[in-house]
Amino acid sequence: MQPIRILATGGTFDKEYNELTGELFFKDTHIGDMLRLGRCHLEVEVEPVMMIDSLQMTDADRDLILRRCQEASETRIVITHGTDTMEQTAAVLGPRVTGKTVVLTGAMVPYTFGSSDGMFNLGTALAFVQTLAPGVYVAMNGRCFPWDGVRKNRRKGVFETKPRQDA
Amino acid sequence: MQPIRILATGGTFDKEYNELTGELFFKDTHIGDMLRLGRCHLEVEVEPVMMIDSLQMTDADRDLILRRCQEASETRIVITHGTDTMEQTAAVLGPRVTGKTVVLTGAMVPYTFGSSDGMFNLGTALAFVQTLAPGVYVAMNGRCFPWDGVRKNRRKGVFETKPRQDA
Amino acid sequence: MQPIRILATGGTFDKEYNELTGELFFKDTHIGDMLRLGRCHLEVEVEPVMMIDSLQMTDADRDLILRRCQEASETRIVITHGTDTMEQTAAVLGPRVTGKTVVLTGAMVPYTFGSSDGMFNLGTALAFVQTLAPGVYVAMNGRCFPWDGVRKNRRKGVFETKPRQDA
Amino acid sequence: MQPIRILATGGTFDKEYNELTGELFFKDTHIGDMLRLGRCHLEVEVEPVMMIDSLQMTDADRDLILRRCQEASETRIVITHGTDTMEQTAAVLGPRVTGKTVVLTGAMVPYTFGSSDGMFNLGTALAFVQTLAPGVYVAMNGRCFPWDGVRKNRRKGVFETKPRQDA
Repeated sequence: MQPIRILATGGTFDKEYNELTGELFFKDTHIGDMLRLGRCHLEVEVEPVMMIDSLQMTDADRDLILRRCQEASETRIVITHGTDTMEQTAAVLGPRVTGKTVVLTGAMVPYTFGSSDGMFNLGTALAFVQTLAPGVYVAMNGRCFPWDGVRKNRRKGVFETKPRQDA
Repeated sequence: MQPIRILATGGTFDKEYNELTGELFFKDTHIGDMLRLGRCHLEVEVEPVMMIDSLQMTDADRDLILRRCQEASETRIVITHGTDTMEQTAAVLGPRVTGKTVVLTGAMVPYTFGSSDGMFNLGTALAFVQTLAPGVYVAMNGRCFPWDGVRKNRRKGVFETKPRQDA
Repeated sequence: MQPIRILATGGTFDKEYNELTGELFFKDTHIGDMLRLGRCHLEVEVEPVMMIDSLQMTDADRDLILRRCQEASETRIVITHGTDTMEQTAAVLGPRVTGKTVVLTGAMVPYTFGSSDGMFNLGTALAFVQTLAPGVYVAMNGRCFPWDGVRKNRRKGVFETKPRQDA
Repeated sequence: MQPIRILATGGTFDKEYNELTGELFFKDTHIGDMLRLGRCHLEVEVEPVMMIDSLQMTDADRDLILRRCQEASETRIVITHGTDTMEQTAAVLGPRVTGKTVVLTGAMVPYTFGSSDGMFNLGTALAFVQTLAPGVYVAMNGRCFPWDGVRKNRRKGVFETKPRQDA
C-alpha cells in the first residue's frame, strides 16, 4: 500500500452554510470526516493548503499547490479543488510535476448538504491515483481525464473531453 | 469511454428499513440513485441479478453471477455484493472469468441510512474497473485486492490482505 | 381533527443549492415532502403563497399573506416564513386576524441541507396551532411567542422574548 | 418558560445499525443531538431511563417509568418510547399520574437512518407538553391523543383514535 497525500484547497467540497447570515463559507476541510465515513483504510495524509473558492484562486495560490506537489514525499497525490478553475490548476501542474501521479477532484454539491457527489468523487480519485501512471489528471463524474484533455461544461455542470491542442 | 456493466446482487448496499416490522429487507437496488447522486457520466448499464443478503447466497446463485459475467458484452464489470461472502464469490469468478476486469464491492452501512460508505466504495470500484488489467478484484476501504489475496476481518469490519496460498 | 392550512412563503425552509452557480435559490416548497417524511396524518392543505427570502418581502406581500389568512376557511393556519422578518409579518397579522390561530415558523438551515431544524419547527408549529387560543404566534426554538412579544436575536440566531410595549 | 423533563426509554427513535453484525441495536439516546439539531432553546432535562425495544418492556419497566414521572420535579414530561407498546405504557400512566402533563412520542424510522420522523414527532411532543392540560397523551403523526383514546394501526403504521370504553 503506497502512501497518498491529499492536498485540500477548498471548493464546493468544503463549503458550509452560515445560519446567521444565510451565506456559504469555508471553515475546516471535511476530507477527514469523509474518509472515516467511507471506511477508508488507505495510508492517507490530509494537508489543508488553503480553503477558498476556486474562482478566487490566484497565480500565487497555484504556485503554492505546485510546490506542495513537488515537495511531497508521496508520489501519489489527490487535490480537492473547486470545479470552476480545476482545469487551470491542472494546466499549471501538468507540465511541471514529474514522476508523480496527481489527481484533482471536486464536488458540485457541498458535503455538508447531505446529497453530495463528493463521497463518490473522492472514491474515484483515490482509486485512480493508485492505478494510473505518473501524470496529472482530473477525476469528475466517474471519469478520469488527462490534464490537457478536459474542460468543465458550465451549462451542464459536467466535465467532458476537450480535444488536445497540437503544438 | 468503455461501457461498464454493474451486476447488483443485494447486500448491505441495498438494505432498507421496514418501518412496520422494524426489520431490514430488500426491495429494489439503489445503484441507479447512487449514480445520479454521484453525477456519474460513465456509460453504465445496471443489471439487478438478485437482491439478497450474501449469507444466503448459494452455489447456484454464484453460478448465475458467473454466467452473467461471462455472457456480458462489456469487458468491465462491477458487482455490488454483501460483504460477508464477497471473497467466496470472488473465488468462484477468479479462475473462470477471462479477458474481463471484474470488481466486487459492497457497503458496511445501507445507502438508505444516510451515513453510508456505499457512495465512496462505488466510486472506487468504478475507477478501478476502468484502470485495472483483466482479472477479478475486491474493492473495499479504498483499497483494491486481487480475488485470491483478500479476506474480511469480521471483528474489525475491514478488508485486508490475505497471504496467497501456494499451489 | 380540525383542518389546518399551511401558507408557504419561502424563507430558509425552502432554499436550495444551485450546483451550476453555487448560489442558493428557491424553486418549489418542500413542505409536502416534510409532512410525508414526518408521517403527518393531520388534515392539512399546503398553499404556496410566494417563494421568497423574507428580507425581500414587501408591504404588498404582507398584505397578501394577511388576506390569505382572512379568506382561509380554516381557523388554524401555519405560515412558513424566513426568520429575518418573521416578527414584522407577525406584527401585521397580529392586530388584523381575528378568531383564528395563526403560527409562523421557519428554519435556520435549509431542509435540503440535511441537518435542518425545519422538521422540528414544523412539528412544533403544527402542535401549537392545534392547541393555542385564537391569536398570532411565532414558533421557533421549541418555544411559542405571542406576536408582540418576540424578536430574533440576530447575533445568536435565536428567537427570544421581547418585553411587550405598553400602549 | 417551564422546565420540561424528557424520559428516554429507547424505541425505534434510538436504534442504531451495527455494521459488524448487520443488526439494529441500542447504545445511547440521540435526544440530546436531536434537540441541538432542532436549535431547541427550551429548558429541558434529558434522563435516559432505559434503552430497549418496547416489545421487551416489562411491568417492572413500566413501574419504573411511572415512578420517574411521579418523582420528577417538573410538571411537564415527554417520554420517548417504542411505538409497539406505547399505548400500554400510556394506560399504566394515565390513571396514576396526577397534576402533570405527560406526552409519549416515538418514531417509525430510527433517527440515525436520516429520513426519520423522529425530529418532527419530538417537535410536536414538546409543543403539546407545553400547552395541554394535565393528563397523559400520545403524540404521533402530528396528532395528540388522550391515553385512553388511541391505538396503533399496525398494518398501516399509523396511530388512530380508539373509541373510549364506557365504565
